Amino acid sequence: MEFKISQEFIAQVEQLITENRAQELEVLLQDIHFADIADILDELDDYGASYVFKLLDSETTSEALLELDDEVREKILRNLSAKEIAEEIDELDTDDAADIIAELPQSKKEQVISELEDVEHAKDIVELLRYDEDTAGGLMGKELVKVNENWNVLTCVKEMRHQAEHVQRVHSIYVVDDEDRLKGRLSLKDLLTTSTKTPISEVYIKKVDYVKVDTKDVEVARIMQKYDLEAIPVVDEMGCLVGRITIDDIVDVIKDEADKDYQLAAGISQDVEADDSILELTRARLPWLVLALFGGFISVKLLGLFEGAMKDHGGLFFFTPLIAAMAGNVGVQSSAIIVQGLANNTISGSILNRLLKEISLSLLNGTILAVILFTGSHFLLGVDINLGITVTVSLISVIIIASLIGTSIPLLLDKFGIDPALATGPFITTSNDICGILIYFSIAKAILGF
Amino acid sequence: MEFKISQEFIAQVEQLITENRAQELEVLLQDIHFADIADILDELDDYGASYVFKLLDSETTSEALLELDDEVREKILRNLSAKEIAEEIDELDTDDAADIIAELPQSKKEQVISELEDVEHAKDIVELLRYDEDTAGGLMGKELVKVNENWNVLTCVKEMRHQAEHVQRVHSIYVVDDEDRLKGRLSLKDLLTTSTKTPISEVYIKKVDYVKVDTKDVEVARIMQKYDLEAIPVVDEMGCLVGRITIDDIVDVIKDEADKDYQLAAGISQDVEADDSILELTRARLPWLVLALFGGFISVKLLGLFEGAMKDHGGLFFFTPLIAAMAGNVGVQSSAIIVQGLANNTISGSILNRLLKEISLSLLNGTILAVILFTGSHFLLGVDINLGITVTVSLISVIIIASLIGTSIPLLLDKFGIDPALATGPFITTSNDICGILIYFSIAKAILGF
Repeated sequence: MEFKISQEFIAQVEQLITENRAQELEVLLQDIHFADIADILDELDDYGASYVFKLLDSETTSEALLELDDEVREKILRNLSAKEIAEEIDELDTDDAADIIAELPQSKKEQVISELEDVEHAKDIVELLRYDEDTAGGLMGKELVKVNENWNVLTCVKEMRHQAEHVQRVHSIYVVDDEDRLKGRLSLKDLLTTSTKTPISEVYIKKVDYVKVDTKDVEVARIMQKYDLEAIPVVDEMGCLVGRITIDDIVDVIKDEADKDYQLAAGISQDVEADDSILELTRARLPWLVLALFGGFISVKLLGLFEGAMKDHGGLFFFTPLIAAMAGNVGVQSSAIIVQGLANNTISGSILNRLLKEISLSLLNGTILAVILFTGSHFLLGVDINLGITVTVSLISVIIIASLIGTSIPLLLDKFGIDPALATGPFITTSNDICGILIYFSIAKAILGF
Repeated sequence: MEFKISQEFIAQVEQLITENRAQELEVLLQDIHFADIADILDELDDYGASYVFKLLDSETTSEALLELDDEVREKILRNLSAKEIAEEIDELDTDDAADIIAELPQSKKEQVISELEDVEHAKDIVELLRYDEDTAGGLMGKELVKVNENWNVLTCVKEMRHQAEHVQRVHSIYVVDDEDRLKGRLSLKDLLTTSTKTPISEVYIKKVDYVKVDTKDVEVARIMQKYDLEAIPVVDEMGCLVGRITIDDIVDVIKDEADKDYQLAAGISQDVEADDSILELTRARLPWLVLALFGGFISVKLLGLFEGAMKDHGGLFFFTPLIAAMAGNVGVQSSAIIVQGLANNTISGSILNRLLKEISLSLLNGTILAVILFTGSHFLLGVDINLGITVTVSLISVIIIASLIGTSIPLLLDKFGIDPALATGPFITTSNDICGILIYFSIAKAILGF
């Protein structure tokens, strides 16, 4: 059922653009879903994208606009007049409209708003622009169906028909009082199956989940996921109904949050994609590499301190990458479990209990790995027994310390309100490398005595 | 608006259980949302959880059952008879019901099904049990509202009222022909605003997105996200409408997929949580550590090959952890970008172009880092100029190779239908450690000549 964009299809589109065969192009594209139109626009060059954009009707292009890559959208919008942008915005739901307008430069923003045809729509959008992007206010839309608790079912249905004209999908019918304060909700089912004379106050459900305009987006996502909600009403400080958030916007929040944590764990500090420019990718990747490089300087310095051991125990230095790698891997595992647990709200109990559990786990893992290492170092690598004991004891110690660092740092960051995901990836591997080397050589010094 | 479970509240619940004050407990818990009831059950011991479960009505407990930790659910279900489980199942939507039944041991499964009161419901569940868990069939529910294209609006509304009794939330009204083949959909809005005598065939929308029963869950998630769908109909091989998938089930698929990729990148190979048992966590973590350990053996062997350099160029060995760490970090960054790009479908162009881009990026990053390393090794670490040149040249080479490995391995795995996320984390860091050391010492040998 899905439309697959082939290279041939793009080539065909490009040819029609070059030859300015607008009508044929329009026929070719007419039945294609806006999400696929967006994919096509992403593939075209600047001129081509703007050409196609201006060719299609604004019902399609306005929706496609939302699905475009940020850069492509910016380029297309730059080629459009304020009036043309306003025509696109007129087609969109208030929340999407506000998102697009928020991206415009200040001067154009005002021009576009003044060009909007529907004054109510414009007022709603201006209101939405006031809220922070990462709050419920920034996520919500103004399109909703609300009824007064004093109406009866018949008035309700009439009013709903009227309101529904502006609302694409009716998720819930919210019930408010005369001051617009949220009182409850009404199920479509009940409305369909109740006599038309029944007063709403008798049929509506008084228990309704809601969020405040300043609730953080990740918190909204957590609540909607936990309570399996497809939409949630948003109220202001006075308890008045000001908007609603739908699950499709929350899907994006969840996806973005997971993507961000994943990238941080991999040492990528900005929201970048494989198709972004080399400069953007460098900006996201280089800082972490610089951090790791300075960590590397410390490990060079540390190893230098033990130079004296090189003459009699040169073999020690062959094991440093192994010890450092194991420390890094264990640290990343521990921190990832904690970061994910914090994100999913599945961590219970005290920090102390958590650390004790991590120690038991490390002892179990460490012992098994130590047996493999001791056997392997003897039979596979043929090192002498003292060195074998040294690396084995070091491995267990390093695993315990690395897992404690990996567990406690994200927990501490979280306690101080800092994103725990910062403590995954390069930060953890670098600090564990350094600790690992220090522990390893200290133990070596104690056992081998140099 | 959210109910926060305090330790005091749990203590209060526990006390009421111990003292067998069932009625008071019932009052205490009566207005609490099922998702919060699930959280409370997760906190109680076996006896307590079963006690509360049996106390509450099955409308609440059946929904709570879905939200419980797997282990807690298993324990509670073990304490219930087949008849009691059937009572819970009777309350659930078919898709959720099938998920719960699928977790039961074979013998109990059949008993529970035979105890189900509603025969239609039971038949639907049995049908759903046939599909693989990770396909559209495994995700879909049978609750939907469908109308025949030959009806008129009035018949439609009547039929819908009847059907809606079994459907909690009406997402879309699907239109089928006499053979139950999916023909299109009907918007509630159109139905509300059209004269009752109009034939459905005149008002329904012929274009409808759908998936087949055997479409993979991640593909369903991708389509629903791309086209912003809140529900999608599922058809069988004949094109007949057999079920529908709603966005809340897809949220779980998206979340699980992101969590899985994140864990693989951190070297955790199973779906585990911070609160899982030490044994489960070990099973998920140990295999990757063993892999890394064997990788470490190889690095020890490699370094041993260059033992001859130790006498005159001992300083070389101080830099191995630095070089290995940089190789690891760069590799993880490159692979993460590719894995995420593949998951989000944002990778375009050929593998060759991708690799060329990665090389340019590495040259840029590598040069900046090389300048820092060369300056730092001279002024901070005080190493001699030849060693400084050696490590600097090695760093650039290692960064390029590591990014190529990080980019190409997930792309290759994906080409062969293997999950590219396997090539992140320990696998990439280990192989890059080894390559890094080999390149480093080869370059050292060429420059320093030992």
